[in-house]
Amino acid sequence: MTKGSINVSVENIFPLIKKFLYSDHEIFLRELISNGTDATLKLKHLTSIGESKSEYGNPQIDVKIDKEGKKLHIIDQGLGMTAEEVEKYINQVAFSGAEEFLDKYKDSAKDSGIIGHFGLGFYSAFMVAEKVEIITKSHTDAPAAHWTCDGSPEFTLEASDKTERGTEIILHIAEDSTEFLEEGRIRTLLQKYNKFMPIPIKFGTKEVNDPEHEPATITDKDGKETKEPQRKITVDNIINNPNPAWTKQPADLQDEDYKGFYRELYPMQFEEPLFNIHLNVDYPFNLTGILYFPKLSNDMQIQKDKIQLYQNQVFVTDNVEGIVPEFLTMLRGVIDSPDIPLNVSRSYLQADGAVKKISSYITRKVADKLKSLFNNNREDFEAKWNDIKIVIEYGMLSEEKFFEKAGDFALYPTVDGTYYTYDELYNKIKANQTDKDDKLVILYASNKDAQHAYIETAKAKGYEVLLLDSPIVPHLIQKLESTKENISFARVDGDHIDNLIKKDETTISKLTEEQKTELDTLLKEVIPSEKFMVQLEAMDSDASPFIITQPEFMRRMKEMQQTGGGGMFGMGSFPEMYNLVVNTNSKLVGDILETKTKAKQERLINQSLDLARLSQGLLKGEELTKFIKRSYEMIK
Amino acid sequence: MTKGSINVSVENIFPLIKKFLYSDHEIFLRELISNGTDATLKLKHLTSIGESKSEYGNPQIDVKIDKEGKKLHIIDQGLGMTAEEVEKYINQVAFSGAEEFLDKYKDSAKDSGIIGHFGLGFYSAFMVAEKVEIITKSHTDAPAAHWTCDGSPEFTLEASDKTERGTEIILHIAEDSTEFLEEGRIRTLLQKYNKFMPIPIKFGTKEVNDPEHEPATITDKDGKETKEPQRKITVDNIINNPNPAWTKQPADLQDEDYKGFYRELYPMQFEEPLFNIHLNVDYPFNLTGILYFPKLSNDMQIQKDKIQLYQNQVFVTDNVEGIVPEFLTMLRGVIDSPDIPLNVSRSYLQADGAVKKISSYITRKVADKLKSLFNNNREDFEAKWNDIKIVIEYGMLSEEKFFEKAGDFALYPTVDGTYYTYDELYNKIKANQTDKDDKLVILYASNKDAQHAYIETAKAKGYEVLLLDSPIVPHLIQKLESTKENISFARVDGDHIDNLIKKDETTISKLTEEQKTELDTLLKEVIPSEKFMVQLEAMDSDASPFIITQPEFMRRMKEMQQTGGGGMFGMGSFPEMYNLVVNTNSKLVGDILETKTKAKQERLINQSLDLARLSQGLLKGEELTKFIKRSYEMIK
Repeated sequence: MTKGSINVSVENIFPLIKKFLYSDHEIFLRELISNGTDATLKLKHLTSIGESKSEYGNPQIDVKIDKEGKKLHIIDQGLGMTAEEVEKYINQVAFSGAEEFLDKYKDSAKDSGIIGHFGLGFYSAFMVAEKVEIITKSHTDAPAAHWTCDGSPEFTLEASDKTERGTEIILHIAEDSTEFLEEGRIRTLLQKYNKFMPIPIKFGTKEVNDPEHEPATITDKDGKETKEPQRKITVDNIINNPNPAWTKQPADLQDEDYKGFYRELYPMQFEEPLFNIHLNVDYPFNLTGILYFPKLSNDMQIQKDKIQLYQNQVFVTDNVEGIVPEFLTMLRGVIDSPDIPLNVSRSYLQADGAVKKISSYITRKVADKLKSLFNNNREDFEAKWNDIKIVIEYGMLSEEKFFEKAGDFALYPTVDGTYYTYDELYNKIKANQTDKDDKLVILYASNKDAQHAYIETAKAKGYEVLLLDSPIVPHLIQKLESTKENISFARVDGDHIDNLIKKDETTISKLTEEQKTELDTLLKEVIPSEKFMVQLEAMDSDASPFIITQPEFMRRMKEMQQTGGGGMFGMGSFPEMYNLVVNTNSKLVGDILETKTKAKQERLINQSLDLARLSQGLLKGEELTKFIKRSYEMIK
Repeated sequence: MTKGSINVSVENIFPLIKKFLYSDHEIFLRELISNGTDATLKLKHLTSIGESKSEYGNPQIDVKIDKEGKKLHIIDQGLGMTAEEVEKYINQVAFSGAEEFLDKYKDSAKDSGIIGHFGLGFYSAFMVAEKVEIITKSHTDAPAAHWTCDGSPEFTLEASDKTERGTEIILHIAEDSTEFLEEGRIRTLLQKYNKFMPIPIKFGTKEVNDPEHEPATITDKDGKETKEPQRKITVDNIINNPNPAWTKQPADLQDEDYKGFYRELYPMQFEEPLFNIHLNVDYPFNLTGILYFPKLSNDMQIQKDKIQLYQNQVFVTDNVEGIVPEFLTMLRGVIDSPDIPLNVSRSYLQADGAVKKISSYITRKVADKLKSLFNNNREDFEAKWNDIKIVIEYGMLSEEKFFEKAGDFALYPTVDGTYYTYDELYNKIKANQTDKDDKLVILYASNKDAQHAYIETAKAKGYEVLLLDSPIVPHLIQKLESTKENISFARVDGDHIDNLIKKDETTISKLTEEQKTELDTLLKEVIPSEKFMVQLEAMDSDASPFIITQPEFMRRMKEMQQTGGGGMFGMGSFPEMYNLVVNTNSKLVGDILETKTKAKQERLINQSLDLARLSQGLLKGEELTKFIKRSYEMIK
């Protein structure tokens, strides 16, 4: 038996690291700026505990393009490296200085915000550069060092005359990566990845009005007054906000601060957010962030501005699938956590215990916030309901825990604009809307306009009619029916109102059994049976003579199928089913029976049927055109 | 100055490789089976050129779960390794045997289908296993070897008594990866990644009817006949099809073969594909594949079954964004190419020259296929138009080259079901639909039912009316108007028909100027000016008295905004604008003028307005309910 150690040869692995370390080459800039940030934060820590004699000052990171020289410079004022440290940290792939530092200063450096982890980030430079130089001067007295490597594993290391503390990385950009010499491209990258990093990042300069110069008013010889030109000064162009709102304590922030941060995050969003949720936890995991409920004005925008995920203020991704519960991905904002494993698959993420805890923490915080908004200012909450209901209803369907908590704040609005919680609704309608079998029937409409006549009929009986118009409503009411006892939901056009809520009273029929049979025969001759099931009902004499209804069960199953899943398989493409309810007590029906000629009877039935179809939105195309033509003639 | 070489230490990089080599841990199985496949294909090549004395036979790869022992075995019958080869290929991370092999047998092995590339795949085993064993016997006379490594970089290598040629990999599955000991999980992975790999993969056994046994008929003493029970035999359960349709020549495949392969790819799809496109090119890049135009029955399904990308019959991803032009991502099928760089970002992919060529090759092939389908069987092509138009119209909008080619087969159907190409349409309507300014006006409707009355009016003039109902139509006609000369599209309800196509003829007005002024004043008193712009027109006396129209330009801009981009900024939320065209020559308008009482005049105007709104779908809710109530009363 031989024993040995697996060998990794630099010749083999270096080309792989160079080309495939990150799937996105642009990441190199984020990595190098993260290194500069770490070097600065480490120095800050050392000076704060008295382990460095250097003056910390106001260090920044400078990003410079040298287009002619085809070079990109990243210069920090951090703790720098001695030649020995370069040997140790740079020439040894995957040896992380950050880990060693955190190890050494375990307790004191815990909250220093240091980013580095695997010690691979620096090598990402070779994804875009054919040659990389490091010129670095340590915060100690050690002389400066100059390291050069042309992408082969060979390097040179020599002395340098750099005198200021810190590290300068010079990338000699490769032929296939010249995009990274464009100012616009670099600006976009800085905006994307570094917008909220903790050390100021300078990218060029800009002209601003001199704040110390108040232009004087000059009066000329004619007495005319003119303003002296405003004096301009050139200042550093700092592209980041090192102290974004989510890193602060909620107690230190006003409503205006949250709104301001929303504009910082989404400069192209003109609508203000409805409200925000500040996340802030450090046990059993570390997570900060601010989530916003946006005003969802238009479907297109939902996808564009997503929740952004950061790690120690470095942008990681805007794909938070698996981390944030799905129903909350419609929200906007920021989540920052060093505890989310990133280089793993989404399916692994979803199974990870820590991530599960994060996800349920976020769900709980959102539910708590909604509850407190509801309790503190119900009027305002009701006003916002239409904009937030999709998220809440979707959450109730997909997260059992959220469904339970939502009982306290989920609202059921009526067609007249009253908003009930479920319990309030229950108490309000219990007496009037319980049917003879002791079942509570909750009436609803999906469209105030399209179901207007049916709503009016229900209201005339003193019933409350909810307006439930989200696409997932069929699923939600299905869930409510299976959770609550002895209730059912019925859309107002599901049947004649006295059949929707059956009471013991019966309306006496004006017609004899014989007349009913005569009417039934007559109607069935005229009305196509494949389109409508005729149903004779003795109703109030002033109720509509003809009413078209669509049975609840079939319609709901179809809708559930159409909105993705549930319902009954294959039902989505079932034909629509309608009933024609004929009010045997209406005067018109009496008239039809008494009319002498068959032709006239038919005309009356057809006109009534057309009116009933019109009311249910079923009279269309050629039939509608004919109806209108006929009606114009009736005007004359 | 010092010189040196960057050093990669195995202690540092091995843990990274183990945990982060692939973002998806499940990939390990694909990698190990790819290695086994390569070992088999290499042997095949060597035996074929006489460099191995081994009998190739019918080798397969065997995947076995040992749940109790917490082990997963992957056993191939390929060329195996000697102890020296294990030392060389396994103990040296990132040293690819496949590359060396291809290098050595450059010309003869070019089409051998060997997969391996970076020599890292084997190490993915450590993502899920705490210990890995290799037991391998070379196809040469060398003795078998047994390698063991517990995940530290230390390994042992000893002799083994294995006698059959090939390699067995034994994974001792780690505690956090026991999911990979579940039969269902492994079956799913094999189905996903290995379904079409070129060497048969055995996963367990199954019982089948013995094909050599024909059950005899037994006659009992009562003369009753019964069948002898079918004899069952146990056979290997081969999970893959080593020769999928796309690897064959188009000439060797029948229509039935393509349909069969579609079912193989998407077993849950019951609809047959409309047609297929066989891709097959080897210069300047290598690409094979079959794309299908599916019947898009339902929006939900579009996303589920996507085009799958393979490399040498190994599944890579179903995200082909950047490789296939966006408008074709609605298609289904398979693309197989070793030339698509995979470990790179999507933005890099889109900029890559080879990928651009692939994308435009696919576009050209699709256009050519559509053209030949159109030419060979126009009737069939027309029948399928409704299912394929979205793809074609979207392609015309997004790819200039496709727009040019689509001129030959893009269809413009009329409301009566005639399908014209653009040129045919042009020639057909040129004479009748050119207006007095020499502009050709193409009339269209977006909904046959909703615009029925307007369509009828246009048809009565002998005009052709197209039915253009895709959501992107506003964008498409905008493009056509800017490409073709002197044409414009007008929806039939954009204005009164004589204004849509202005001819030199004028209809004489029955009203005097005075009467017109009187009418105008009267109408403006009754009709709310914020809702309708009143427009008096002398039309045919039997045309509708009142018509509501919606000007083309504003409506189109709004629609373009709503379907994502284009149009005019901010217009999406503009209020709808309508005109009320009043036919001064209609009898009803004459009646209105002659009516004595103001109250009666108002009633006539309102009833006419309601009918006009009904025709345009604008009479809703309470107003519709009132209209119906009024109409019921008029019947009585």
